[in-house]
Parts: sequence; C-alpha cells; structure tokens
Amino acid sequence: MAGAIVYLLNGPNLNLLGTREPEVYGKQTLADIEAAAKKHGEKIGLSLDFRQSNHEGTLVDWVQEAGKKAAGLIINPGAYTHTSIALHDALKAVACPKIELHLSNVHAREAFRRVSFVSPAVDAVICGLGADGYTLALDAVRRLIEKRA
Amino acid sequence: MAGAIVYLLNGPNLNLLGTREPEVYGKQTLADIEAAAKKHGEKIGLSLDFRQSNHEGTLVDWVQEAGKKAAGLIINPGAYTHTSIALHDALKAVACPKIELHLSNVHAREAFRRVSFVSPAVDAVICGLGADGYTLALDAVRRLIEKRA
Amino acid sequence: MAGAIVYLLNGPNLNLLGTREPEVYGKQTLADIEAAAKKHGEKIGLSLDFRQSNHEGTLVDWVQEAGKKAAGLIINPGAYTHTSIALHDALKAVACPKIELHLSNVHAREAFRRVSFVSPAVDAVICGLGADGYTLALDAVRRLIEKRA
Amino acid sequence: MAGAIVYLLNGPNLNLLGTREPEVYGKQTLADIEAAAKKHGEKIGLSLDFRQSNHEGTLVDWVQEAGKKAAGLIINPGAYTHTSIALHDALKAVACPKIELHLSNVHAREAFRRVSFVSPAVDAVICGLGADGYTLALDAVRRLIEKRA
Amino acid sequence: MAGAIVYLLNGPNLNLLGTREPEVYGKQTLADIEAAAKKHGEKIGLSLDFRQSNHEGTLVDWVQEAGKKAAGLIINPGAYTHTSIALHDALKAVACPKIELHLSNVHAREAFRRVSFVSPAVDAVICGLGADGYTLALDAVRRLIEKRA
Amino acid sequence: MAGAIVYLLNGPNLNLLGTREPEVYGKQTLADIEAAAKKHGEKIGLSLDFRQSNHEGTLVDWVQEAGKKAAGLIINPGAYTHTSIALHDALKAVACPKIELHLSNVHAREAFRRVSFVSPAVDAVICGLGADGYTLALDAVRRLIEKRA
Amino acid sequence: MAGAIVYLLNGPNLNLLGTREPEVYGKQTLADIEAAAKKHGEKIGLSLDFRQSNHEGTLVDWVQEAGKKAAGLIINPGAYTHTSIALHDALKAVACPKIELHLSNVHAREAFRRVSFVSPAVDAVICGLGADGYTLALDAVRRLIEKRA
Amino acid sequence: MAGAIVYLLNGPNLNLLGTREPEVYGKQTLADIEAAAKKHGEKIGLSLDFRQSNHEGTLVDWVQEAGKKAAGLIINPGAYTHTSIALHDALKAVACPKIELHLSNVHAREAFRRVSFVSPAVDAVICGLGADGYTLALDAVRRLIEKRA
Amino acid sequence: MAGAIVYLLNGPNLNLLGTREPEVYGKQTLADIEAAAKKHGEKIGLSLDFRQSNHEGTLVDWVQEAGKKAAGLIINPGAYTHTSIALHDALKAVACPKIELHLSNVHAREAFRRVSFVSPAVDAVICGLGADGYTLALDAVRRLIEKRA
Amino acid sequence: MAGAIVYLLNGPNLNLLGTREPEVYGKQTLADIEAAAKKHGEKIGLSLDFRQSNHEGTLVDWVQEAGKKAAGLIINPGAYTHTSIALHDALKAVACPKIELHLSNVHAREAFRRVSFVSPAVDAVICGLGADGYTLALDAVRRLIEKRA
Amino acid sequence: MAGAIVYLLNGPNLNLLGTREPEVYGKQTLADIEAAAKKHGEKIGLSLDFRQSNHEGTLVDWVQEAGKKAAGLIINPGAYTHTSIALHDALKAVACPKIELHLSNVHAREAFRRVSFVSPAVDAVICGLGADGYTLALDAVRRLIEKRA
Amino acid sequence: MAGAIVYLLNGPNLNLLGTREPEVYGKQTLADIEAAAKKHGEKIGLSLDFRQSNHEGTLVDWVQEAGKKAAGLIINPGAYTHTSIALHDALKAVACPKIELHLSNVHAREAFRRVSFVSPAVDAVICGLGADGYTLALDAVRRLIEKRA
Repeated sequence: MAGAIVYLLNGPNLNLLGTREPEVYGKQTLADIEAAAKKHGEKIGLSLDFRQSNHEGTLVDWVQEAGKKAAGLIINPGAYTHTSIALHDALKAVACPKIELHLSNVHAREAFRRVSFVSPAVDAVICGLGADGYTLALDAVRRLIEKRA
Repeated sequence: MAGAIVYLLNGPNLNLLGTREPEVYGKQTLADIEAAAKKHGEKIGLSLDFRQSNHEGTLVDWVQEAGKKAAGLIINPGAYTHTSIALHDALKAVACPKIELHLSNVHAREAFRRVSFVSPAVDAVICGLGADGYTLALDAVRRLIEKRA
Repeated sequence: MAGAIVYLLNGPNLNLLGTREPEVYGKQTLADIEAAAKKHGEKIGLSLDFRQSNHEGTLVDWVQEAGKKAAGLIINPGAYTHTSIALHDALKAVACPKIELHLSNVHAREAFRRVSFVSPAVDAVICGLGADGYTLALDAVRRLIEKRA
Repeated sequence: MAGAIVYLLNGPNLNLLGTREPEVYGKQTLADIEAAAKKHGEKIGLSLDFRQSNHEGTLVDWVQEAGKKAAGLIINPGAYTHTSIALHDALKAVACPKIELHLSNVHAREAFRRVSFVSPAVDAVICGLGADGYTLALDAVRRLIEKRA
Repeated sequence: MAGAIVYLLNGPNLNLLGTREPEVYGKQTLADIEAAAKKHGEKIGLSLDFRQSNHEGTLVDWVQEAGKKAAGLIINPGAYTHTSIALHDALKAVACPKIELHLSNVHAREAFRRVSFVSPAVDAVICGLGADGYTLALDAVRRLIEKRA
Repeated sequence: MAGAIVYLLNGPNLNLLGTREPEVYGKQTLADIEAAAKKHGEKIGLSLDFRQSNHEGTLVDWVQEAGKKAAGLIINPGAYTHTSIALHDALKAVACPKIELHLSNVHAREAFRRVSFVSPAVDAVICGLGADGYTLALDAVRRLIEKRA
Repeated sequence: MAGAIVYLLNGPNLNLLGTREPEVYGKQTLADIEAAAKKHGEKIGLSLDFRQSNHEGTLVDWVQEAGKKAAGLIINPGAYTHTSIALHDALKAVACPKIELHLSNVHAREAFRRVSFVSPAVDAVICGLGADGYTLALDAVRRLIEKRA
Repeated sequence: MAGAIVYLLNGPNLNLLGTREPEVYGKQTLADIEAAAKKHGEKIGLSLDFRQSNHEGTLVDWVQEAGKKAAGLIINPGAYTHTSIALHDALKAVACPKIELHLSNVHAREAFRRVSFVSPAVDAVICGLGADGYTLALDAVRRLIEKRA
Repeated sequence: MAGAIVYLLNGPNLNLLGTREPEVYGKQTLADIEAAAKKHGEKIGLSLDFRQSNHEGTLVDWVQEAGKKAAGLIINPGAYTHTSIALHDALKAVACPKIELHLSNVHAREAFRRVSFVSPAVDAVICGLGADGYTLALDAVRRLIEKRA
Repeated sequence: MAGAIVYLLNGPNLNLLGTREPEVYGKQTLADIEAAAKKHGEKIGLSLDFRQSNHEGTLVDWVQEAGKKAAGLIINPGAYTHTSIALHDALKAVACPKIELHLSNVHAREAFRRVSFVSPAVDAVICGLGADGYTLALDAVRRLIEKRA
Repeated sequence: MAGAIVYLLNGPNLNLLGTREPEVYGKQTLADIEAAAKKHGEKIGLSLDFRQSNHEGTLVDWVQEAGKKAAGLIINPGAYTHTSIALHDALKAVACPKIELHLSNVHAREAFRRVSFVSPAVDAVICGLGADGYTLALDAVRRLIEKRA
Repeated sequence: MAGAIVYLLNGPNLNLLGTREPEVYGKQTLADIEAAAKKHGEKIGLSLDFRQSNHEGTLVDWVQEAGKKAAGLIINPGAYTHTSIALHDALKAVACPKIELHLSNVHAREAFRRVSFVSPAVDAVICGLGADGYTLALDAVRRLIEKRA
C-alpha cells in the first residue's frame, strides 16, 4: 500500500476553520489539520492530496479526478452535503473506497443539516470527532482499501 | 435557417458518459454524442455550440450567452435539474426555443430526481431516449425555431 | 421494419383537440394529427393503429392488446397520467418500446399534473412539442424498436 | 329561455339513492329526484337531460356532449369528485354555466372527501341540501344562464 | 313560518363589496345585497337580521345570539372561514339550520382558501353564485327550517 | 348454505395472470384460478360468480349487483385498490360479508400500493398467498356468512 | 399570599357552558364555575379576577393587564388555543406563573385541536378534568407562586 | 409434514382477549383460541408453539428462536405492528414462511394503525377475520410450507 | 374511599430524577416523590402502588394489572408517551379513571415530544408542575373516582 | 407631497415595546417610536396617523380606512402576520403603496413565524432593523408614493 | 465612518437587470444601480465594493472576504437565496452587519421562493422596493454599523 | 487511562451477526467482534464491557449503568436507533463520551432508517465500516476520553 494516494477534499467554508465558531468546530486551522493528516498518512503508508474549495463544481471536478487517480477518497462536503445531487452523482461514479466526514455532529444541529445527498453515495460516514475525525477517517479508508485489494 | 446557432449545454458528470454506469447511460462518450449531434445538425441546417461543465454558475453564464446569440437551446442539466433555481431564472430570461433533455428516464429513478426546477422554464422536455435523444431534440428545436420565425 | 405496427393511444378529452383551449393545445384536431402521424409512419415504415378513448378501462384494454400485437406503443394518457395505477400496471406488462407523450409541457402547469404514474412504466417521455410531438415520438419509437431488434 | 337544455349528470352509486345509507342521503330514489327536478325545470323553463353512470369515462363523454348541446350543466360527480382529473379537464372545456352538486355536506365527512378536482372547474358548488339541492341548483343555473345571455 | 327570523352574518371585508375587485365579487354593494335579500325574505316569509363585522369575536357573539333567537342562520364568514376554530365551535353549538355562503368559488382560488373550519359545522355550503347566492341561500334555509319543523 | 352465491370480482390486469411478471404473480392463469375456485366452492357449498374487468365503472356495477344477489363478496381490486373511492362507496353499500384479496403482498411493494381505499370498506383483507388466497378467501367468506346467518 | 390576585381568563364560547354539548363539557354554567373557583380561591388565599370573552384581541389585552397586576394567571383559551400566535406572544411577555386549562381532554378530539400555540408559552397545562380543573389549577398556580416568591 | 413446528406469537394486550372491547375483538379468550388452534394444527399435521408477550424484546427473541426451530411462523404483533423496526429486522432474518395476522380489520381503524413495519417483512397478511383468522392462517402457512418443501 | 388503591406508574429514565438535568426536572429523587405522594395519598384516603420501569412491556403488564386491581391510575410514561401504541391499547382497556402526568411542560420542548399516543387513551393530562404534579394528580384522580362511584 | 397622510399601524403586543424581551425588540417604547417617526415624517413631508391595536378586526377596520384616506400604509402586523387572512384580504383591497414592517428578523425565529399571509398582499417588506425600520419604511413608502404619482 | 467599506454582492442573473422581465425587475441595469449606489454611498460616508457573479462558490468566496475587509455587507443572493446552505454558513461566520436585499417582493411569487436559507443568517431583510432598495439598504447598513461601533 | 471502562452495547438482532444477510453485515459473528474489540481495547488501555440485548428497556438500563460506571460508551442501537426516544433520554443523561455505531451505511438503505433519535444525544456517529467500525470507535472514544480528562 506504500504510497497509495488518498484524496481528502474539503467543501465550502472549511478554509475558515479555527476562526469560525471555534466552540463548534475547534481551534485548529485547516492547515493544522492538513499537516496532522499528512503526517498520519505517511505513518500508515498513504500519500495525501488535500484540497479545499467553496465551489460545488470544483468539488465535482476533483471527485471525478479522484475516480481516476486515487486509491481512496475522504470528503468533508460542508454545506453541499445537504444540497448537492451533483456531488452524489460524481461520487456514485467513483469505484474506490469513499468516506464522508464531518467535524461536528450534524445530527444534533438544524433540521436542514439532517438531509444528506452524499451519504447514500459513499461507503461510510464519520461525524462529531472534530479534527481527530481526519486521522480516524484515514485509518478507516486504509482498511477499506486493504479489503478491496 | 441555414447556420442557425443552437447551444447544446451539458451539466455535471456528463463528461463521464461511456464510463459511468453504462447500463444506465449507454456506452457512447460525450465526444461521440457531440460528433453525432454536429453531423445531424449540419444535415438539418443547424450550427451547434456544444459544451459541458460541472459548475452551476458556468451553466448559468452559458444560458445567458445563449439568450444573446442562439436561435435555440438544448440543455441536459444533469443533477442541477433538481436543485438549481438559478438555472430556472436564467432560462426564464431566454426568449428562443428551449428544450430540456435527459438520457435516462428520470421519472423511473430516485424520488429526488422527480423534482425539476428546469422543466417549468423550458418549452419541451425529452427523456429516456439515450444518445438518440440528442438528435431528436435537434429535430424538435428546429421545428420550434421554424414556428416562431 | 416495414409494416411494424405501432399503437398510438390517446386518453380523455384529446378528442376535443382543436376546440379546447387552442392557445394551450394548438388548433389541429385529433383527426389532423392522426392523418399527419399516419403519413409520417408510412414514410418511416411504421403502420399505425391510432385510437382515442375517455375510458380508463378501455385504455387498459388497448394497452394489453398492444402488448400482444404491437412492435411499439405511444400513449398520450391525458388526465389518466396523474391518477391511473391501472395504466401503470398494464404498461409494466408490455415488453415492446413504450413512449409517453404530452402536447403541452405538463411541468409548467398545475401541481397535480406533475405527478405521473405512467412515466415510471415507460421507456421515454416527450412533452411540450404540440402536434409535432407525435411525429417525433414515431421517430423515437422506431429507433427503440431497431435497437431491441 | 323556454326549452333551454340543462344536463343533470349523476356519478357512481347515486343509482342506489333511497336504499344506501338513507340517514345520510335521504329516502328519495334517484327516480324520485329526477321526476321532481324535471317538474321544477318545466316550471322555470328548462328542459332536463337527466342521467346516471358509474363509469368515469361515460361521465367524461356526457360532459363533452353537454359542452356541445346544453345551455347549462349540473353535475353530482359522486366519488369521482375526489379522484378524477379527466372530469376536471372535460369540465374546463365546457363554456356554459356549470354547477357541482352534492347531497351531503362532503366537508363534514372523511378527509379524502375534502379534496375536489371538480370544484376548480365549475362556476359554483352547492352541497348539504339533500334532494332539495337539485331544485336549487336548477334555479341557480337558470340565473347564470340569464346573466351570460 | 311567517316572520321566522333568519340571521344573515357577513364577515371581514364584505363591507367593501362593489368597490373591492368587482371582477371577482361583482358590482353590487353590501347594502344592495341586503335590500334584495330582505325583499326576497319578505316574499318567502322570513324576517332578516342582516349584519357585517370585521371582528372574529363579534361574529362569534352574533352566532351565539342567533343560537338563541334565530330560526335559521346564513353566514358568509369571509377570510375567517379558513382560520377560525372559534366560529366552528360557536356554530357547532347552534341547533337551527345553518348555511355557509361565499360569493366567489373559493375552490378555484389560492390554496389557503380551500381549508374551511366552518364547513364541517354547518348543514350546507353554497359558493360561486355571486349576489344571487344570498337569495338562493334564503330559499335553502327556508326548506331546512320547514323540514325540521 | 348449499348454493349460496359468492361473487368473486377481479380488477384490472388480472386477466394477464400467468404471463405478467410470473415471479410476482405466479404461473397460473385466471382461468386456472377460476376453475380451482369453483371446484373448491362446490366442495364447501358455495356457488361462484367469477368475473374480471379492467373498467372501474364495471366493477362498481358488479359490486352493486352483488349487493342485491350475493351472500358473500370477494374482490381483488387490482390497481383500483389504491385509487377508487367509487369502489369504496359501492362496497360500503353492500351488507353481505366482503373480503379484499391480493395475490402478492402489496405491503412489500411500491409506496403507492400501501394506500387502500377498499380496505376500510370490507370486513377482512388477505394478501400474499398467491392463487391459494382464493380458496382461503372462500373458506373465510363462508365462515363470515355462517356467523351472520 | 393573602389576597394575591390571580387572573382566570376564559376564551370563546365558554360563556355557553352548561348548554353547549353538556356530555362533553358538563352541566355547570360558567357562573357556577366562577362561584366555585372564587370560593376555593378565598380558601387558599387567592383573590380571583374571572373573565370571559369571545374576542382574541380582548384576551390579549387582559393577558397584558395580568402581566402588570396579577400574581398568577390561568387561561382557558378555548378555540384560540389552536390559532392564536398573538396570545402566545402576550403570554410570553408575562413573568408570573401561567397555567393553560381545558375542560375536556383536547388530545382525544379532532386533529386540529392537538396543535397549541399557547402551551409553549405557559408553565403548565391541565386538561380533561371538567369543572374540577379550575380548582386544581388554582392549587397549582398557588404552589408555583409560592415557589417563585 | 407430520409434526412440523409452527410458532404462533401474540403481541401486547392480546392476553386481554375476551374482556377488552369484545365488540371489536370477539368474546373468545386467548386460551380458547390457543385450544382451537392447537386442535386444528393437529388435524392438518402441524405442531404449535403458542405464546404471548407484552414485551417487544421478548417477541424479537421468539422470532429469532423460530428462525432456528420452526417450519412456519404466524405473528399477531398487536400494537408493535406499527412501531417496531426491531421486529421487522428479526422477521427479515427468518427464512421459513411467515404470516402476519390481525383479529380486526386494522385498515378500518385509527390512521396510526395503517402503518405496518411488519408487513414488508412477511410473506402474507390476514386481517379482519376474528378468531377464525388463526385457523385460516394455519391452513395458509401449511400451504406455504408445502410449496417451499 | 378509604384505602382505594391507585397505581402510580413511572416510565423510562424517571429513576434518574434528581441527577438528570435538574434544571429541567427538579432536584427531588423519585424516592422523595414516592414518599411525598404516599403521604399525600394517605391524607386523602388513597393507598398508592408506586413503581418505575424502563421497559415498555413491563409498563404494559402493570397497566393491565391496574385494570384489574386499581380504583385509579396515574402514569408518567416518560419517553414511551411519544412512541408506544402498546401503552395506548393497554390504557384503552382500563376502565378506572386514568391521568397522564409529566414533570416538565412537554409542549415547550422538542417537536417529537408533542406527539402523544397516551393522551387520547386517558381521562386527563397534567404537565409542567414538577414534583407537585404528583400530589395534584392524586387530588384529581380522587375526584374522578368519586364522580364515577 | 406636502402633508400626504401615511397610516402606520401596529399589531398585537407592540404596545409592550421597551418592556417585552428588550434584548429582542430593543428598549424604545412605542411612544418613543411614534415620536421619532412623526418627526421624521414631518421632515420628509408626510403626515402620520400612528395607531396600535391588539384586535385583528380593528386592524382590518383601519386598513380599510387607510384605503380611503391614506397616500401610503405601513403595517407591523405582529403575530397576525402569520395567521390573518382577513388582513391579507383587507390589504389586497388597498391601492396605495403598502409596506410590511417587523422590528426583529422574523426569519431567524420560530418556524411558525416564517409563514406570512401579509407579505403577498403588500409591495415591500422590511425586517430586522429594530426601531430604525420605521424611519426607513417612511423613506421607502415616500419613494413608492412619488413613483405612482 | 468616513470611508467605511461596504460589500454589495449580487447573485445569479442580476447582470441581466434592465433586460430580463422589466415589468418585474424594473428598467435600470445593474450598472445604473451600481452608479446610483456608489453616489449615495459617497454621500453617507460609505465606500462601496460592488460585484456580481452567477457562481455560488464565488459568492461564498466574496462573503468570506467581506468578513475580513468590510464594515458592512449587503447581499442580493438571487436564486441562491432559496438553495444555498453554503452561503448561509459563510454569512454566519461574518461578524459585521449584514442585510439581505431583493428587488421584487419574493413573498408574492412562486412557492419555492418563499424559502430562504439566507434570511436566518443576516441581521435584516429588505424586499420589494426595486432599485430604491439599494440606497435604503445602504442607509440601513450605515445605522447598523454606527450602533455596533 | 489504564483500565478505563468502556461500555459497548449492542441492540436488537445483532446477536444474529454472521448468519443474517452476511452480504450486508459481514461474516463475523458478534462473538468474533467482541474478541477483536477486547483485544484492541487491551492494546489501547481500555477495559471493555460488551453486551447485547433485544430489549429496549434493558438497553436503557445499561446506558444508565454506563452513566455511573463507564469512562466511555459505544452503542450500536440497531433498529431502536430509529424508534427509541427512551434511549435518547437515557443517553442525554450520560456525561461521558458517547459514540453511535452502525455496521452498515444506514443512509443508503430504507427511508425509515434515516431517522435517528440516538444521533442528537451522542457525541459522534460512525457507520458503514463493518466490524472494523468497532475498533475505530474504540480509538475514537479513547481520544474523546483523553480530551475531557
């Protein structure tokens, strides 16, 4: 598995991490998380491609790209979780293991955050573990890659 | 009508045609479809501007552009069919004949695909005819252009 | 394909065409449409059986008959589109290519016309093209017949 | 107005009047009602065409016929009130005054009887007056005919 | 029946009749209607108490009063039709014949006008006959009074 | 009970039995079922009147007829189960024991098959037993007849 | 607590108590209830201000007045329970203990009586105890006043 | 089939049979029913394990046990029909023929009794036949066992 | 009434009282409440059987037992209020006076707490009075017992 | 425009301003707001008629009066915003410019405050600007009056 | 406040202003509006950053940028008002005063325009004042900035 | 953290693991999972209390017990996820870190599995990782315990 590429895609407003509602999302910036994730990836033999965009279309582009290049895909779709059928379709077309990730427990928030178009198109969902969720998702995607290998 | 320009716009994930769920969407790539459509357009006196984007905003830009330059508009809005009021508004502002096109029969799929914000803003809807839908939509748009001429 | 039989069934109130709300449904009568459709059918090698009824049960009878005798089926179910599960079931039992056809763009009208029990039971749907929809549906059903042949 | 023809159409199960739940629908039979209505019609210068059918399609046929021959139309659509868009469409295509009539107060019964596809397609609605509703509806349709004359 | 008292209560905004949207509600003022109704009442042996109020509570007071003094009650509850459970309760407590009356066909208007809290609490409903509805309602209430007598 | 007449009415598309989706509805034709049912009826002292129609109105006619002639009624209303208030009303007016019957387990199918207007108007419901359901329904209706006798 | 003032406000149609549906609401008149409540209030050291109105606005006025003068508030809002956001807002602005009271068990009646805009704006709700509910509510409000004192 | 074991499980409140609303559920006690069922089982070669519990978990335990020991399963889940996904899951895991049984016609009662989580997980449903339903269900389960054998 | 037995049943998580969210449920433990209730019961001539269980089935068992032994029943069903049709059925089968009790004002909390399957099956409902609700419910049940005696 | 009359109507509970939830509605009393509004009106050439009522019917009366006397109308309907179709109808009948005004951002509060029957009947809506909203609404209504002049 | 920067962001299709449905949106182009807004901004001491995009992601980028650079934010989100949770989240993370602005009265249009994900995330909403809304929103945002200063 | 106790609770039907739908839930039995989980727990310094029950009440008892004894709680509530408010309340009363765990991706299954009463009452949710989910949940709960320590 050495060097297997995993795409770790982050959706809208996640670039604000550390400054936006830190009591909900924690004090770590996305750069902190990227550094920690890459370090952990290295340790477990995964090479990370870590990106963020506020654009639904760009996330769709990247998911398609992951479908061609990645051994695994982790996506924190932010608000597009709840509104994007385009992401749903793009993910459906990706064969490698796919995990949906959220920092907060979306189920304990506004009603409109309980609808997810992304969940039915991925293998697994992890939420509510804050920045730790990223390293756990890496462990999880690694196991899924191994199983399918 | 010789050389009347028709915009043929394709939405998210249609660039994956031929590889994504071929049992649903057929084996032809979007390039195959473009070639066949252009050939058919030529035969019936229409000049095609054929494009694809995963970005809702880009599709809105293009629909606006079509409103200024095109004699007819065919749009396969993919997943944005079901979520984009921005496309609805852009199409409403276009005066030339407009046709909504889908490869698959969207009515026989998931419940969330039965809502269309695009349908009330176009003249006609064609779905379920696979790649053939493109040439039929061209025939159809041609007749609508003739009638309004 | 010479002489392949295609049933073209028309539902309730379509016998009023030409007189009922001509600004919505056009000025052609159903007889005009039948003549044009038969002429076009002849040109593309299809023999048409063109009928109209206001009775749901009669339409079910005819769909069943088409299931035994026809190479293709085009149905404009009129108002039964939105209320008839019996038609849905009858169509489900028909193996040949089936197209649902509407003169007007039903999606741009009353909310109760946006529900279709027929759509999930056919191969394709065409709407909003007025009387031209009939000839286009014939072209379309012809291609579907060829493909399955 | 002497001899103006008024169609008085009765839907499913109204032929059971007098025997079916007399505490709800009264003890008069449909024949009793027809006789009384015709007598009253004669008095106010209306010639009645009084019919009953359990078939939705037949009622649609008759409504269409009324559209051609009648000066006024009264319809007690029975259970088709709540399910028939075909009747809605047929009535929409009729230009003369149209009144929907019910023996019982449908609003005080099961929830599914509070939906009416017929009401938005007629001029007026009268319910809850039992057999008297027929003579009142005749008075009402007469005034509507006079006004439009 | 000579001199039997019938309350004819009118709800909010009916005092605007003749000036407010005359194409919907007609050109007659409420005073015109009152005069015509009283004249007709006289002819058929009914003595009318004709009132109008914009206040839900006042209408409730009057319905209670009618419960004590009137032989019959006709109410055009205007907008309170759709929102007043207080009127529903007041009407439920009235034993004499009760008719709900509307000038326009409320079923052919906005969705929120299709809910009626009043209808299940009255004997009969008449709508869509304009000012004529008042005289017809008087005829109707007279028959209901006779039957119960 | 010798010779008590039981109506066994079958709704739309049941004439297709044996050919339509045999994996759902079994391989027996309706004629096979009729023969078996009549044989069983004979054995338990019931004389069967076995019919099928695709027409809602015809089924309503027959239910009314059963109300006059039959000692018991078994109805497999097919798709009209879910849409026919006319059948509901007709059945309500029938005093003898009434059983609703379905070959398949309608509860395990599409959502729109979980609504039944027929069920609240009958005594009992049996579904999911295939062709055996007919003989069981006969046993059941026999016991209900005995009890009421 | 001697002489602490408690407002006891009664909504629409409660002035009909004793005559309106006595099998639901009991045979006591509102005057009987007022006398009993005042006597009990005296016994437990509460001075009652007992009122009734059919007017939503008047009840809002009184609730506001209670907010300034009363140590406790008991309200039987009648039908306004289910429709009045104005009462909700007025009660929200009152700081003293507030109890919603109903004679009947509103939960066992029509569906529209299960919605309460008042309940979320009060401290406690008591229903189904008939006229006894008034004395119990007085005991209850007294304890709430003591606790907050 | 001699001695094939059939579990006959009864849910909450069925132990009250004979005393609780006898006009709805009949006068037979559950012991009466058990005796009759066992006698009938013996006659048709089935050995019955007849149980009742008010505990959802216990019913789940028993369904699982039936999955290991029984040739057939009949369950009257009482109120858990409408609320228990746990029973749904347990039944889904059982391979032998399964029948859902109700004494009353649940479709003719409160709205909340029209939802069944059990129905989609069984082969067949029988309701409305009172205590006779038990012997009919035994006949039915026997045939299902034979067919699968 | 001396020694009349009243069952006071408490549902899930009420054994946590005093520790769980004391700002919502108060600081008294269930033992405190039991002691106070028994003392009050003694004073007004009622003998209490006070129990708590987290098991829906056990509560159903106890309600059935109360139906045989108790003169009155008070139940705080906790979370089963909102989900248990089994409790609804059990309570329906109990003839003695029944009161539903809640410590907090359930109407002012989450939406899912506004649905109660228990309320339509009891005589009265009291909520929002904290631990005092228990003594008030005892007073109330006593009066109900007296009235029915 | 000098001296053009503008009605500024305030609905239920707005007389509590300054004392009721000042963190939501601010510390200014309605008298403060009236004074500031009149001063501002004077400055921009508008003469204000400033009123408040808790009564829906009174507000309807005033809106009708404004329809006859005012050049512009500003209404803060308070809770009647969400429940009053009577106000909707009254406003519909007013021809002069009409603005709906709210102190708080109603969209950020309870779900039931997101429904407005008033909004579709006015020209413009302003909310969330506190007491400043009044002067801005005056500026706005002035421009609307000028445009229509 | 001299030179305080205010972002004025415009969403999809607003670049069509002046040409698209001028009877709804007025005849001014967005450039006209920008010029007028800048001139007014200058007058009241605000420096405007005026932008338009059809791309949801770009609007999210700009809102984030405003969060860092602007003293106030006015956004006319066009169709994204009704579909964008991403904009909601971005706006939530902005601390300065925020106003949502619409040219037309969105409440008087299609049902899908009555849902706003933006409104709960801003301070105030202004709609229905056409191009004048921009200058009024500037006045409003200025006051909000002053208050927070 | 050495020896910190973590409760790992499993709900209904999880005892069937390995035999029930292995294509959905995997081939490992619950005993296999327990062994692997305990081994992993030992490695990371957690002492596991691993249990399973089909009884909602027992799960509530255990959650309460965990609230007193455990440093962390992992719960796979099975079908009770979707129906148990009692579990919701019990979990709300537990202060230590809590994780909801599912073997399958519940979001990609039946609609009724997308409602979770458990999710809003826990810190985090993990689903779709099969048996691996257990070890990942242990890693996750360990980090949550560390953070709160």
